Amino acid sequence: MTAGAAFDDWMKTVQAGVERQLGDFLPADVTVPHKLHAAMRYALLGGGKRVRPLLVYAAGALFGADAAALARAAAAVEMIHVYSLVHDDMPCMDDDALRRGKPTVHVAYDEATALLVGDALQSQAFTVLAEGAGVPPARQMQMLALLAQASGTAGMCGGQAIDLDSVGLSLTLAQLEQMHQLKTGALLRAAVVLGALCGKDLTDGEMAALNAYARAIGLAFQVVDDVLDATADSATLGKTAGKDAAANKPTYVSILGLEPSRLLAEQLRHDAHAALAPFGDRALRLRELADLIVQRKA
Amino acid sequence: MTAGAAFDDWMKTVQAGVERQLGDFLPADVTVPHKLHAAMRYALLGGGKRVRPLLVYAAGALFGADAAALARAAAAVEMIHVYSLVHDDMPCMDDDALRRGKPTVHVAYDEATALLVGDALQSQAFTVLAEGAGVPPARQMQMLALLAQASGTAGMCGGQAIDLDSVGLSLTLAQLEQMHQLKTGALLRAAVVLGALCGKDLTDGEMAALNAYARAIGLAFQVVDDVLDATADSATLGKTAGKDAAANKPTYVSILGLEPSRLLAEQLRHDAHAALAPFGDRALRLRELADLIVQRKA
Repeated sequence: MTAGAAFDDWMKTVQAGVERQLGDFLPADVTVPHKLHAAMRYALLGGGKRVRPLLVYAAGALFGADAAALARAAAAVEMIHVYSLVHDDMPCMDDDALRRGKPTVHVAYDEATALLVGDALQSQAFTVLAEGAGVPPARQMQMLALLAQASGTAGMCGGQAIDLDSVGLSLTLAQLEQMHQLKTGALLRAAVVLGALCGKDLTDGEMAALNAYARAIGLAFQVVDDVLDATADSATLGKTAGKDAAANKPTYVSILGLEPSRLLAEQLRHDAHAALAPFGDRALRLRELADLIVQRKA
Repeated sequence: MTAGAAFDDWMKTVQAGVERQLGDFLPADVTVPHKLHAAMRYALLGGGKRVRPLLVYAAGALFGADAAALARAAAAVEMIHVYSLVHDDMPCMDDDALRRGKPTVHVAYDEATALLVGDALQSQAFTVLAEGAGVPPARQMQMLALLAQASGTAGMCGGQAIDLDSVGLSLTLAQLEQMHQLKTGALLRAAVVLGALCGKDLTDGEMAALNAYARAIGLAFQVVDDVLDATADSATLGKTAGKDAAANKPTYVSILGLEPSRLLAEQLRHDAHAALAPFGDRALRLRELADLIVQRKA
């Protein structure tokens, strides 16, 4: 079996496990309130590449992390990510009708339900992480603080606010990078560090290496998103293509051009690999995920 | 000095302290993203009765709780409460223009900002609680799980969903009670239990007594809300009066009538006092808060 096939098998196994665990960590739709629970399951289950859970598991492999702890960390990060998608798709934000190839939550249900689905998924993420075992309480507190910071104004919400404020402005490359480090980078970093913390307390050196890796893949993720938004079609992406250009949002492609953006993504892939050097073979899956993030087609 | 005057002094001291602490636990509006931070401060600061923080401090007085821990618990609960107000006021929910006598966040700013303010305040609540010290990590985990459960689908969000599903339906008294126990009761209970947990681990008996107290004041709070909504004017309430009747929402007044609702509130006040009997004099502030909740005029 080639390395690529082994990675594919690992990825499919993790994705299937995460799908099952996410279902278990959500209330059943036969319990009241039915509509909210059904809509939460609609939003969270049955789709998505599960990049953040894959990062949790790949980082967990560095230190032989506890399986139950990894399941909770992966589910919590994915719930935060999906809640942000549900809210970002709403009419007052990006007003998007298609997500992961399906009607968005406010289209399939209604706006009030979409608002509540996002709110409740955020709470559920912290519930799942706070109820967990398998990690000593002090480290679990560190994990909760990390996820909360990555979600809020110093992370995802802050990045989204800068994004809203940037429409129609010409950002510098540094400003664009800062926005994306908050908007998507903070949660990707949280996924990596949470996965590692499921295994053990981290030394400063280990934390620095993981931060460097996370920074590189976070930026690469966004650069590739911008390239795909400019080049792929909606059917391939499972969401509306060309939205950023149409909305006059600054992107790597609009600032750097298409080919330099591709080169930058490749450089960041190398940076990610370099950051993992101290971990040796145990970082195999993290290296392969960096490759996946840069080489994906959707 | 009469007991009433001593209570008023205590209340004003706690409210002023909470106002200051809330300001400290939020990012300054001079830091990026300015607009989001300014809107978060607009939503959270300078208004409100701070009922939940008062409950945190009153319950903390049962066991001589750590001051820094109480400050964080009070701020976290209030941030969850205020985020829910900001989202509930949005056009896709209650579409309300007035809150605490000021324009609501989506009116003063815009809908996208209101959505982000709510999302970021929820994250900030968990950040503030997770970064705290003064409580052993295992108990702090219990506090985080409690707040997350009270906020989500088994608490506030779930109650809001049932509320949305109930418009135009005729609920039984039991169904109305279940809705309110989730929508507002869960967070009021969280405030009481978090305050007590800032002091020490709780025995089953202490937890049961606090739950009984919280159940009584939670229901009383809602019964009085319904009475005020039916009898007071918007200027006194600081929000739009008569909304529930206009929206054809079931209320205690619509099911029981006005005078029986007032009697029920008085009965619940007695229930709350009775539940506190095991705590003796240390429960003075909790008793006075039950009185305040039932006897308030806005």
